[in-house]
Parts: sequence; structure tokens; C-alpha cells
Amino acid sequence: MYKQLVANVEIDSGFWKKYIDLVIDTVIPYQYEALNDRIEGAEPSYAIQNLRIAARDIEGKYNGMVFQDSDLYKWIEAAAYTLKYKSNDILEKRIDEIACLLEKAQLPDGYLNTFYIVNDITKRWTNLCDCHELYCIGHLIEASVAYYESTSKDKLLNISCKAVDNICDVFGNDKDKLKGYPGHQEIELALIKLYNVTKNEKYLELSKFFIYTRGTENPNYFIEEWKKNGKKREFGLNDIKPMLEYNQCHVPVYDQKVAVGHSVRAVYMYTAMADIARITKDEKLINACKELWDNITQKQMYITGGIGSTNIGEAFTFDYDMPNDTIYAETCASIGLLLFANRMSLLEQKSEYADIIEKILYNIVIASMAQDGKHYFYVNPLEVFPKASKLNPTQFHVKPERQPWFGCSCCPPNVARILASLHKYIYSVTEDTVYVSQFIDSLLDCEIAANNINIKQNSELPWKGNIKLNVLLKKASEFKLALRIPSWNIQKPKLMINGKEIAFIEKNGYAIVDRIWENNDVVDFEVTVEVIIMESNPLVKKNIGKVAIQRGPLIYCLEEVDNFSNINEAVINVDTVWKETSMDISSLEVVVLIDRKSVV
Amino acid sequence: MYKQLVANVEIDSGFWKKYIDLVIDTVIPYQYEALNDRIEGAEPSYAIQNLRIAARDIEGKYNGMVFQDSDLYKWIEAAAYTLKYKSNDILEKRIDEIACLLEKAQLPDGYLNTFYIVNDITKRWTNLCDCHELYCIGHLIEASVAYYESTSKDKLLNISCKAVDNICDVFGNDKDKLKGYPGHQEIELALIKLYNVTKNEKYLELSKFFIYTRGTENPNYFIEEWKKNGKKREFGLNDIKPMLEYNQCHVPVYDQKVAVGHSVRAVYMYTAMADIARITKDEKLINACKELWDNITQKQMYITGGIGSTNIGEAFTFDYDMPNDTIYAETCASIGLLLFANRMSLLEQKSEYADIIEKILYNIVIASMAQDGKHYFYVNPLEVFPKASKLNPTQFHVKPERQPWFGCSCCPPNVARILASLHKYIYSVTEDTVYVSQFIDSLLDCEIAANNINIKQNSELPWKGNIKLNVLLKKASEFKLALRIPSWNIQKPKLMINGKEIAFIEKNGYAIVDRIWENNDVVDFEVTVEVIIMESNPLVKKNIGKVAIQRGPLIYCLEEVDNFSNINEAVINVDTVWKETSMDISSLEVVVLIDRKSVV
Repeated sequence: MYKQLVANVEIDSGFWKKYIDLVIDTVIPYQYEALNDRIEGAEPSYAIQNLRIAARDIEGKYNGMVFQDSDLYKWIEAAAYTLKYKSNDILEKRIDEIACLLEKAQLPDGYLNTFYIVNDITKRWTNLCDCHELYCIGHLIEASVAYYESTSKDKLLNISCKAVDNICDVFGNDKDKLKGYPGHQEIELALIKLYNVTKNEKYLELSKFFIYTRGTENPNYFIEEWKKNGKKREFGLNDIKPMLEYNQCHVPVYDQKVAVGHSVRAVYMYTAMADIARITKDEKLINACKELWDNITQKQMYITGGIGSTNIGEAFTFDYDMPNDTIYAETCASIGLLLFANRMSLLEQKSEYADIIEKILYNIVIASMAQDGKHYFYVNPLEVFPKASKLNPTQFHVKPERQPWFGCSCCPPNVARILASLHKYIYSVTEDTVYVSQFIDSLLDCEIAANNINIKQNSELPWKGNIKLNVLLKKASEFKLALRIPSWNIQKPKLMINGKEIAFIEKNGYAIVDRIWENNDVVDFEVTVEVIIMESNPLVKKNIGKVAIQRGPLIYCLEEVDNFSNINEAVINVDTVWKETSMDISSLEVVVLIDRKSVV
Repeated sequence: MYKQLVANVEIDSGFWKKYIDLVIDTVIPYQYEALNDRIEGAEPSYAIQNLRIAARDIEGKYNGMVFQDSDLYKWIEAAAYTLKYKSNDILEKRIDEIACLLEKAQLPDGYLNTFYIVNDITKRWTNLCDCHELYCIGHLIEASVAYYESTSKDKLLNISCKAVDNICDVFGNDKDKLKGYPGHQEIELALIKLYNVTKNEKYLELSKFFIYTRGTENPNYFIEEWKKNGKKREFGLNDIKPMLEYNQCHVPVYDQKVAVGHSVRAVYMYTAMADIARITKDEKLINACKELWDNITQKQMYITGGIGSTNIGEAFTFDYDMPNDTIYAETCASIGLLLFANRMSLLEQKSEYADIIEKILYNIVIASMAQDGKHYFYVNPLEVFPKASKLNPTQFHVKPERQPWFGCSCCPPNVARILASLHKYIYSVTEDTVYVSQFIDSLLDCEIAANNINIKQNSELPWKGNIKLNVLLKKASEFKLALRIPSWNIQKPKLMINGKEIAFIEKNGYAIVDRIWENNDVVDFEVTVEVIIMESNPLVKKNIGKVAIQRGPLIYCLEEVDNFSNINEAVINVDTVWKETSMDISSLEVVVLIDRKSVV
């Protein structure tokens, strides 16, 4: 573990800046329209309508999923991050209006959830297993912290604190308090953020209570709750006994060695576990996190960073079970894994965490959203056969085309908030080292040993392997620069300082240079971006006889439109010399690969 | 079309006689225990208990599926066929007792269905879409005809006629009659049997009414019925609008060119369509049958004769969609396809129909039942991974081991009745030809042009290709002998009469010899039984890079227990010289195949 110092980062150009601009200019306004049910041909959200009803602003009945509030909160969080890049009065006004509605909807005791406020407030906290009240407050916290950090406005933060204070009154180990925890984990990691901002220990304690209580009680809380409710449940699950593995409460968190159940819930929980482990230095919890991390990334993750092998329960199945067609690989699940990776990297600075973050950013996050910023994948399959998606019910969940919105639309605002906060995942700065974990054009501004350090990064990834760092200093300063050596890099990278190749130490997957840096030092780091034919572990039965084509961080896709019909008949020659050529796909200039042998 | 003459056939020895003995000695008694809920560790049937409650013999409430009666009826049908082989007073007494219970349960107007009689008789005929009343009566008819033919006892037949007379009063084109038809087809083919036995035209007309009405009405009967029922349905389907393709009532039967929907319902209906087409010589209906036959067998059938590519709806999906792991391939569906093949062969004597019957008998019917006669597959997959069957919900329906019984147990008694009536599928006799369609040890007794003809067949299939026919005649007789040339036969078969090879004409896949036969003529027919490596049409995406190993009619199975773990890694060398060796598997002497290259 190490202490991470404050760093200000801004993505200022290049490949990823286009996505950030897309989020600012298109995604945020588009999603606001979606949340207001104003997108023609898209499934309505009802999120803002529900809030207005709860705030007694209009009359009507609740619509949509029980967790509809959270889509709005994630959108606020995303919007808040974008204010860092571009001040936007209209956007702030919209968020402030929502804050006013939330303030009006919030009950005097702090309770806030439109589903129960609109439907039947006497039922609150009676179905933790299904009804997502704590989950929604988690996203409210994240939104309010982001908005506070961007604008210093504290109305939303105060609403969050009031809501959480109420939760502290209701939940806990004291007699008369509920010993329950969220059916869908999320608030645990959010509470850590609230603790970081407010320094109020009780928020940390509440997060710990939720994490450490889970799976320790006997009889299980959800099963008792279900019985108390006359076996009534949400989602048409009446009479179906809660499955404890689905909710990761089958055993205490210490004893969870294998990722199971609903994959988003799982990785959100593991993220909070890693947060708590870091703060409390709980060695047992650190070990549990490491085991879960290894299990997922070595045995339950697709090559794209997708997780969740089945749509039934949106869940993990078992080690090496990686069907390509009936896969789930929900966008949110990979985003959760990205968060988990980030928190693991705060526990130990190893390149494997940044490798997975990069894999997910390229192959899930931006792949799940169309270049127009208005269409999204919820499920990210490895194999799509449009006819099967339409005619074979086991593949109905796999959409061959990105959709404008979803009745359950957790993924689109999740993509928006990750892209808008991408600057958080590029660098980490400790007392003696600047770690460059993602090769993304950006400007770093930090301080080590009272010396101000600016680094301007320019990266040609994902298309080429040249990364250039301009070190800008007020005075010469000694610190270590640690550059991630990507997992897909197949030759030893070349590191040059001011045009001269230098040796470096390799530690935990980073190339480390320790020197006294001068102002205007230029670092050139060259990694190998070329085609690699990737094979699965043969225990992945569905991939026997199959390969994937990777180039740099990108997993390539073979489509009938570019090749021939019945693409499944394609055979990859292992000795192919790939022709790399440039092509414009939806205004994005990409490197496409051509098998020379198949070119006439 | 041709006139089929009466033939008496008995299976008297060899490979199949063992299965018939198993059915007589084990399966029939075992299933009787199952129907009486006396099998420990098996899901209860409730079929006889429900009947006893309906007959006011005991008190209680209805249990099990809405169509539980049909399991009992199929068992009676199977038991009735076995009486041909072995008289059995105890068995007859059991059936007669059931007949008495049925007589007591039957309402004065003829209505008979334990689900509605026990639960609420006022609801009868109000949910044709889901509730299987007509389906159950169909199986009652088949049982009663079989029992009447075996014993000449007519109590069951009279119960059937009374039940059907009631149906004739309720359904039909007359004003005030219901214009509905079965949600699950079955009675249509059964009514043809009842017509054949009773010669009562109204039963044929009722069958035609059900077939010809289907899909012609507007608005659709099931959708109107569903609305009338306040959108209430069985099977937890409330509010789900009936899907017309699922029930094959999306268009009139004439316009059905592609097999769709629930696969058992589909093939039972096509069987009745072929029956009616034969009887009425309806050319349009004959063409519809041929198109459906071609569609199934060329584009929607697994190499084993399995049909139904998805468990969701137990249904067909679309052409060339043949997943091996999420497959359904219900035993009953292949039995229905066998019946359809049989009826198609009555329309035109082509070997392809008998080929499919043979394929299903070897690879589904006997494969679905354990050698002990007490364990069954409902789903017959091409690929089984026990861990996935347990841990990946998309494969939960695929059982790695045969089960003692099922809550929905349509398949086990269906296997019993097909095996017990196997003698019906071996020969067909026309005015000038004896067709030998299945190579099964048996004795044929028939008459052509007033000459009695006996043929004793001895076949070494499936292990060897030698088939011997002893022709036993009272006097020399001219007739054609037509021997099926199996689809898997790869060299021209050898045909010898009295030890001397002779030439033959090949027509519609049969080797035909036209001669004046003498008593004790011996025919030797030699077909090639050797390993063939089978490849799918490449449009079957899931089979690209895969082959099947077939030897004679049998599709071979590769199992970890005989080979190595992670069997999916197995590679078949196309130039392998297979070593054929004998092995005892559960007391069955089988030919197993060994790849010499993999033998150390």
C-alpha cells in the first residue's frame, strides 16, 4: 500500500479527447432527453417524471424499474465531471433544478427513493433484496460528490448526507436497527467517497457494516425478509427463494474466493472491499480481494474484459465457462471491474490492474457506445448472429445493433460517467514516483516533495506504439517515472530520454527510471503495436480451434459486411502477414487488418 | 399413394427383441409404479391419484401438470402393445381397473379430463390454448384402440367414443359450436386411428375440422380466448399473449412451409396432416407435408434425428440453427418425427422416410433410455458438459445423467409405446411388393394375391451389415421384394439369392427384386457398416470445424471416461484407420471405435 498524492489531470487532445467531447456535446444532452422521455423510438426512462411525482410537482404513478432513480444520478455524476472540461451554465441549471426536486421529494427524516415515496412509503426498507433503495442512494452519493468537487455547490451533497444519516439511523449493529444490507451493492463504495469528502467516520463505518455483515448472519436476512413478505417479490419472482450466491451473501466476504452471482453486484462489492481493505489495512480482506481479482481475470473474464457468462441472472457461471454467443458481458459489469481494478491498483501498483482498465476502456466502454454517442450495447457479445438474436430465444438478449435506450438503462449513463472521469485513471502519484498507467494524451499537474511537476503526454495508441512525455518543471527534481509495460507488448519497449536510449528497471510491470529531471526533458517510450494471434486456455471449451486477433490493446472484430457471408467459415492462417491499412469508420480513422492471402 | 395390406409382424430375436423384453419385463411395471408415485427419489406423477379423485374413489386435490392424464394413457397404449408378445393377466387386470376408474370419472355427457373434473368443471373448454383437454383425449383414443386391437375388449374404446362424441357436439362449423382446436395437437392423428377402427366418418371429419380450421380464423381463436379469460393463462404465462407460431396456427396448414414453434405439437400435427392427405388425396395438403418434411430433415434436424433447437418454448428456431449445447431435442419430438416419417412413407414409398425412422430409433429412442429401462433423457443433447448443466442456467435443461422420472414426464411412456409397437415400422406390403424398411429380426406374415407369404428376417445391424431373409411359402408366388438401401451405405449393396449374387433395380432408395419366389428361398443382403466421418452443411455455424462419427445407423459419442479430460480438445484425424473392438456397456455388447494413432 502506498499513499497516493493529489494530481490534477486533464485530457487535452487525441484519441480519447474525441470521446470526451462526444460525451460533453452529445451524450450528456442526449441522455438528458432520454431521462425526460423525449427520444422518439426509444424506451421511456420515466426517471425525471418519477422524481417530479415524488416531489409533488406533478401527479401520476410510478413507472419503470424500481431503480430508475439511479439512471438520473449516474447522469448527474457524468455531467458533473464534464464541468471540469467546459463550464456550462445550462447544464448546471439543469442539475440544480434536479437538486431542488430531490430536496422537495426527500422526506423530513432524510429518506429518498421515488419508488417507495410514490407507491407506498410504509413499505420502505421491507424488500432490501430486490428493491434497490440503498443502491440508488449510492449513486446519489457519487453524483453529489462529483458535483461538489466540480462546482463546490453543496445542495446535492447535503441531500446525500441527510439520506445517509437516515440510513445510519435505520441500519447497524445497535439493537432495534436493521441488520440488513443492499440487495444490489453500490452504496458501500459510494460511502467511501462520501467519507473522503466529509471525513465523517460514520460513513466509513456504515460501509464497513454493510460489507462485513453480509453473509455472516444466520438465518440469512434476505430469506427472512422474503418469508416476512409472504414470499412476495419484485420482478415476477414471487415464491422464488432468494439465491444467496446471486447476491454474494452466501458466505462472509472473507470467505469469498470465487466470483459468483450477479456480476455487477459482485464487482461493485469487490471495489468497496478493496477500498475498505486499503483504509483499514485489513490483511484478510486484502487477500480476499486478491483471490477474487485473480479468479475473475484469470478464469472468468472474456478477452475483451467482458464478465458474466449468462444472461439468466446477469451472472458469473463458473471457471473457464465462456460461451461466445449466449454470453452476457454487461457494459456495467466491465465498468465495475474497471473500478475494482482501480482500487486494487491503490492497494498495490502492479501493471495488471492498469492492463485490465485499458482492455475494458477500449473493448467494452467505447465499443458499447456508437460513434454517434446515441446508441448503446447493454450486452457485449463475442459472437453475434443477427438471425439467432431474432429467432433463437437463448440469444434474444444479444442485440446485433446498438439501441437508443433501454427500459433498464443502467449502462448508457455508466459509460458517460466513466468517460467523463477518465482523467482519474491515467496517473498515480506517490511520494517519490509518477506512475503512467494509461497512455492517453493528457496534462498532469502534481507535486512531489514540494516540487511542482507537469507532464504532457502524447500517445499514438491504440494505432501506433509511440508515447511521448514532456516533463515541465520549475526546477530540476528527482523522482521516479514509472511507465506501464502493456501486457500485449511483445518486444522489450524502447525508452529514450532526450533522444538517447536508456536502460530501465522493470518492476511490477512498470519500466522505472529514477533520475533528476530537468525542465523540458523529453521521454520517448516505444511499445510494440502489432498483430498478435491470441489463443484461449484450452479449458475454455468454446474457444477450442478458435483464435482472437489483437493489435495493441484492441481486440479485432470480423464482420460479414467486410468479408463474406457465413463468416463462421473464416479460417485464420497462422503465418499470415497482415496488411495494415487505414479506414474511416463512422468518422473514426482506424487501422484495419487485411489477410494478404485472401486479397485477390 | 398405394394401398397398404394387412401384415402381421413379430419381432422374435436379436438386438431389438432385447429392448422389447426390457419394455415388457421392466419398463411397463416400472412406469406403473411411477404413475402410482411409488418410485423413491423420483418426481411424483399423480396421474393415477388424480384419476381416482376424479372417479370419487378417494378425496384430494389435483396435482401435477394439466396434461397428467396423458402419461397414463400412453402407458396403457404401450402396455396394450406388449400383450401381443406375451399375455399377461395382471397387466390386463390393471388396465381394466383403470378403465373402470375412467368410466366412473367420465361425465354423463362423455366429458373426460381429470384436471377440470377435479378442479372446476365449469371452466372446461375455456382454455384450449394451454390446457390440453383435447390432447389428453387423443392419447386416450390411441390407448383404447391399441387395447382393443390386442384384446378385443371394448370398454376403453367405448369410453373414447363417448368422449369424442361429446367433442363432436361441442366443436365444429355449426352455429353455436366452438370453432377452436387443440393448443397441443395430438387428437387429430388419434382420430384417424379411431376412424380406422370404427369406420365412423364423423371422427375423420372432426380430425379434418381441427386441421383445416387452424390458422384460418380471424381474429385468432386463442387470442380471443385469452382476452375472454382476462389474460389469465396456465404455466405462469398470465398477460403473455399467445404466440401463434408456437402453436402452428399463425397461417392455415396449407401455407405452412417451415416448421415452427413447439416441436412436439408441430410434428404431431404434420403426422395428422399426412394421414388426412392420404385419406382425402388432398394434393395441396400432400405438398404442404412434403415441404414441412424437407424443411425439418434438411434444415432443422440434428444428425441424431433430434429436433427443437431451443428449450425456451421447446421449439424449432430457424434453418441451420443447430446449437449442440443449448439444444432441446426432446425425445417426444423425435418420436413425433418418427410418426410423421411413417405417415409420409404411406404417401410415397421412399427410403428417406425409413432412414429417418431408423436414425431416430437408434440415436434417440434407445439412447434416451438407460439399459436398465428405468432412467430417461428428456433432452438429447449433442454436447454435454456436466459442470455447465449444473452451473450455467442456459444449460440447466441438459441433464448429464438419465433421470428416474420427471414432473413433466411425457417422454418415458412415449419411448415405451414406440418400442412396444416397433413391429409396425418394419415392413409394408402392397398389392405386389413386400417392402423391408427396417432391418430388425422379425417374422412377417402377409398375403399377396391370395398367397400367404412368410418372411423370417435376421439382421446383424447395427454392428454388421449382413441381413438374411428366409422366404417361406405354401406355394411359389410372384411378388417384388424391396430392400431399403440405407442412406449411410457407401458401397453398392450385395444382394444374393440362394447364395448367388443377383442384379437389382434401384427405385426410391430400395433395391427391388421381382421374381417368382420358391419356398425356402434365402436372400442375403449386405450393406456397408463402416465408419463414416460426417460433416455438417457449413451453414450450421456451430459445427464448423467439427465432425461426427457415424458407423452404420449409429452416431458415436466421445466421452471423457473413455478418453481423457477436457474432451473438447479431441482432434479427429481424417485418415485414421479405426480399430473396431467389442465392449460390454451395461450388459450390451457394442462395437467401440479406437483411433489407432492415439493407442500407445
